Amino acid sequence: MAKVLTSKEENYAQWYNDLVIKADLAENSAVRGCMVIKPYGYAIWEKVQSVLDGMFKATGHSNAYFPLFIPKSFFSREANHVEGFAKECAVVTHYRLKNSPDGKGIIVDEDAKLEEELIVRPTSETIIWNTYKNWIQSYRDLPILLNQWANVVRWEMRTRLFLRTAEFLWQEGHTAHATKEEAIEETIRMINVYSDFAEKWMALPVEKGTKSPSERFAGAIESYAIEALMQDGKALQAGTSHFLGQNFAKAFDVMFASKEGKLDYVWATSWGVSTRLMGALIMAHSDDNGLVLPPKLAPLQVVIVPIYKKPYELEKISEKAAIIKGELEEKGVSVKYDDRDTHKPGWKFADYELKGVPVRLALGPRDLEKNTVELARRDTLEKETYPAGRIAEVVTKLLDEIQENIYRKALKFKEENTFHADTYEEFREIINNRGGFVMAHWDGTAETEERIKNDTKATIRCIPVNAKKENGKCIVSGKPSSRRVIFARAY
Amino acid sequence: MAKVLTSKEENYAQWYNDLVIKADLAENSAVRGCMVIKPYGYAIWEKVQSVLDGMFKATGHSNAYFPLFIPKSFFSREANHVEGFAKECAVVTHYRLKNSPDGKGIIVDEDAKLEEELIVRPTSETIIWNTYKNWIQSYRDLPILLNQWANVVRWEMRTRLFLRTAEFLWQEGHTAHATKEEAIEETIRMINVYSDFAEKWMALPVEKGTKSPSERFAGAIESYAIEALMQDGKALQAGTSHFLGQNFAKAFDVMFASKEGKLDYVWATSWGVSTRLMGALIMAHSDDNGLVLPPKLAPLQVVIVPIYKKPYELEKISEKAAIIKGELEEKGVSVKYDDRDTHKPGWKFADYELKGVPVRLALGPRDLEKNTVELARRDTLEKETYPAGRIAEVVTKLLDEIQENIYRKALKFKEENTFHADTYEEFREIINNRGGFVMAHWDGTAETEERIKNDTKATIRCIPVNAKKENGKCIVSGKPSSRRVIFARAY
Repeated sequence: MAKVLTSKEENYAQWYNDLVIKADLAENSAVRGCMVIKPYGYAIWEKVQSVLDGMFKATGHSNAYFPLFIPKSFFSREANHVEGFAKECAVVTHYRLKNSPDGKGIIVDEDAKLEEELIVRPTSETIIWNTYKNWIQSYRDLPILLNQWANVVRWEMRTRLFLRTAEFLWQEGHTAHATKEEAIEETIRMINVYSDFAEKWMALPVEKGTKSPSERFAGAIESYAIEALMQDGKALQAGTSHFLGQNFAKAFDVMFASKEGKLDYVWATSWGVSTRLMGALIMAHSDDNGLVLPPKLAPLQVVIVPIYKKPYELEKISEKAAIIKGELEEKGVSVKYDDRDTHKPGWKFADYELKGVPVRLALGPRDLEKNTVELARRDTLEKETYPAGRIAEVVTKLLDEIQENIYRKALKFKEENTFHADTYEEFREIINNRGGFVMAHWDGTAETEERIKNDTKATIRCIPVNAKKENGKCIVSGKPSSRRVIFARAY
Repeated sequence: MAKVLTSKEENYAQWYNDLVIKADLAENSAVRGCMVIKPYGYAIWEKVQSVLDGMFKATGHSNAYFPLFIPKSFFSREANHVEGFAKECAVVTHYRLKNSPDGKGIIVDEDAKLEEELIVRPTSETIIWNTYKNWIQSYRDLPILLNQWANVVRWEMRTRLFLRTAEFLWQEGHTAHATKEEAIEETIRMINVYSDFAEKWMALPVEKGTKSPSERFAGAIESYAIEALMQDGKALQAGTSHFLGQNFAKAFDVMFASKEGKLDYVWATSWGVSTRLMGALIMAHSDDNGLVLPPKLAPLQVVIVPIYKKPYELEKISEKAAIIKGELEEKGVSVKYDDRDTHKPGWKFADYELKGVPVRLALGPRDLEKNTVELARRDTLEKETYPAGRIAEVVTKLLDEIQENIYRKALKFKEENTFHADTYEEFREIINNRGGFVMAHWDGTAETEERIKNDTKATIRCIPVNAKKENGKCIVSGKPSSRRVIFARAY
C-alpha cells in the first residue's frame, strides 16, 4: 500500500487532517463546522467516556441532563459570561416551517416566531444555576456534584476536525458547595482527575496550572488547565476546571441557609473535557504510517492476520488463530481475527498500522510448522517471532510496555521541547524557530501578555502549580517576577 | 411521612406527574417543553442505555455521531418525510448576538443571518443518508450497521415529562443494505431486540406488530412497533423499527454496484427508542406509594437502614451492615447503607418506597441480639425477618423473584385488559368505559381508521405479528377482514 498520509515533516496540519480522514476517525459534514464522528473514532471516544465517567463517579459525582436550549436573557445575567459565550452561537428564532407558496420546498413560518430567542448551549452554567436555585435551600442540600455528557455549539469561523468544531461532544461538571474552601478543593480535585486521565490513559504528559486572568473562563475566579505539547511544538489545552466563586449564585440568586441559619450565596465550580481530547490523542503519538494509540484506549488491541495461499492452509491457520484469540480474550485483551478474502495481508498490515492497532500477529504456514507467531508492535514497528504457546503472555505484557513506552516518548519530547528564556530576544527566537513550551518570567500584567501575543502569537498556557519559586525579571518589562510561567503557541 | 402522591384512582395523570417529580426523576425546565432529567432518573436511563447498547453491539452494530443540525433543504428531499417531521421544529436562523444599543442585554445580530436555515434534528435519516452517499460505492461497503445516542427536538405543544417533550434523548439506528430481504430481516431483528429488552429488563409485556399505513413513520414502507399497556388502560408505543425501502437512498442518490456490477439503490432501516421508555417504566409498575422498579434496571437494588437510639447501638449496627453490604456486593448487588442522622427511619422507609428501591433491609438492636434482619420487598410491601447469615442468599433470589413478579403482574393486567369487540357498539363501550387493548376486525381502509379515531380517540396500535388468522367483518363497514388488529387510546 502506498503511503496515504502527507508526512508530518512536509505539512503537519495536512498530516493531521489526512490521518483523521484516512484512519476513519471523523470527517466534515454537510453542515458547516460540524463533524461526523465515524464508528472507529467514536469507539475511541466511548473508551474515553467510560474511563472518565468511572473516575467522576469514584469521586462522588452523578450524571444528569439539562436542556439543549438556553433562553437568551440568561446569558446577560453574568456580565463576564455573556462577553465570553453569548456572541458566536446558534440562535433559534422560530419553531415551525411551512410549505413554500411557490411549491418549491419549505420556508420558515413567520407566524411561529419565538417571543424570546433560544441559544443552543455553548456551555450550561446559566441554565444549570437557574435550576439549582430550586434545588438549594439549606446546607443540607449541598454539595451538589453533577456531571452532564452532552453536545454543545460554539459558532467557530475556522474549524478543524476534533480540535475546533461548531458542534462538539463534551462533559461538563457543575458543582455547588457551602464553602469557598470546599469549592476550591473540588476545582483542584477535578483538574487532578484530568491530568491523571491524560497521563495514565492517554499516555500524554501534561502541565497543570492556573490560567492568567485574560485566559480565564468567562465568569470564573480561577481557571485550572492541563496543557499538552503536540509534536509540532504547539500547545493544546486538554481540560479545564474552574472555581466560579459566587458569581453564578449571585447572577441566579441561589442562596442557602447555613447550619447557623445564616443566608449566603452558594459556591460553584465547573469543569470539562471534550472531543478535543481526540485531537490531542491523535497528534501526540502518531507517525507518518498513521495513528499510534495507547493500548488502554485502543478499541481493538490486537489483530491476527492469516497469511496463506491454499484454502487448507487457511483452515489450519484459523484453528490456531481461534486458540490464540481465546487465550488473549481470557486475559481481557480485545482481538480481531481478520480472515477477509477481499484484501491481501500487505494491505491489511498497512490498514491496521494506519488505524493504530497496538499489536499485530501474523500466522503463516511456516508458523504452523514451527508453532510460532510473528508479532509486530505499532509503536516501534518492530517485528519478532515468538513460540505460539507463549504469545498470550507476551502480548499482555507488551500492551503494558507499549502504553509506558509511548508515554515515555511523549514525556521525553515534552522535556526536550521545554525551554527557558531570559530575554525577549531569546524568547522570540525559540517561539519562532523551535516552538515548544517556553518558561519565562512575566510581570503579571495583561499589557505584557497582550504585547507578547501580538508580537509572537504565543500565549501564557498556564502558571504551573508545581513551579518552583524563582526571582527574576519580566522578559518584556523587566519588572520583578517570582516564578516562570509557560508560554507557547497553541491550538 | 404523609402520602406525597395523588392516588392513581383519584387522578392518574396527576399521580404520574407527582411521581416523576417527587421521586426525583425529572422536572420541567425554564425552557418551554424541555425537561431536566435529575440524577436518579438519569441513573435509570444510564442502565437502559448500557443494556441496549450491549444488545446493539451483540447484533453487530457500532455507534457513531452525526450533526445536531440539518440544512432545511434536506427535509424537502423525501416527500413523506418532510410532511411528518419538518413542520414543528426548532429553526436556527442566526449565528451571532450583539450588545443591545440601549445597553439592556443582548439582541440577535441581523448581519449574522444564515444563508440556509438549520433545523435542530427531529430524527437523522436525511443527514445520515446524505453522509452514506459518500461511504457507499459497492456491495463491499455494505451493510452499514450504525447507531447514534443523541438528543432530538420536536416542537410539541402539549408536553408531559418523559412521555412527550420538545427535547428528548434517544438512540437511532440507521442501517444500509444491499438487498431488500436483508433490510427487512434487520428491521425485524431490531423490533425483537426492543421487545426482548422491554420484557426481560423492563418487566414490561408488549404487543409486537406493524403499524397501519397512516401510523407509519414518515418515509417508511413498513413500521414495526412494540406497544405496552399502561395501568390506566392507555397504550404507549415503546419502540419502533422501520423498513425504509429505497426511499432515502433515492432521495439522497445513494447507489451501489452489486457483485455482478449492476447499479442499484441501497436499502435502509431505522429504529429507535427514547426517554419515553422512562415514562413506560414508571407507569407500568408503580403504585400510590411511589415508584416500583424492576431490580435489573434499579440504580440501587438494596438499601440498609439502621434503627437505633444510642450511638453505641449505631456502631454495632454499622459493623453488621458493613458485613451484609459486603456479602451482597460480592454477589453483584448494588447496596447503600443509609446511616444519615438527619432523617428518621420512618422517613427513610417512605422515601425509598417512593424511589422504588426493590429491597429494604432494617437492622435494629433486637436484630443484633437475635442475629436477624428485617426485609421489606417493594413490589408487594411484604415484610419478613431472616437470619442474618442467610440474607445475601435470600436477597439475590428475591431480586430475581421481584423481577419476575412484576412482569407477571403486568402480563396479567394486560391479559385482563385485552378485549375482543365484534360490533362497533361493543367497541365503543369498551373504549369509553374500560380502556385497554381492543382486538377488532378492520377493513384495512384509512377511512374506517379515521372514523374510529374521530368517534372514540382510539387508534390502531398495531397489526400483531403473531395474530392468528380469523375471518371476520370490520366493526364499522362490515367488510371482510382476515385478522383482528389492536385498537387503544394511546399516549
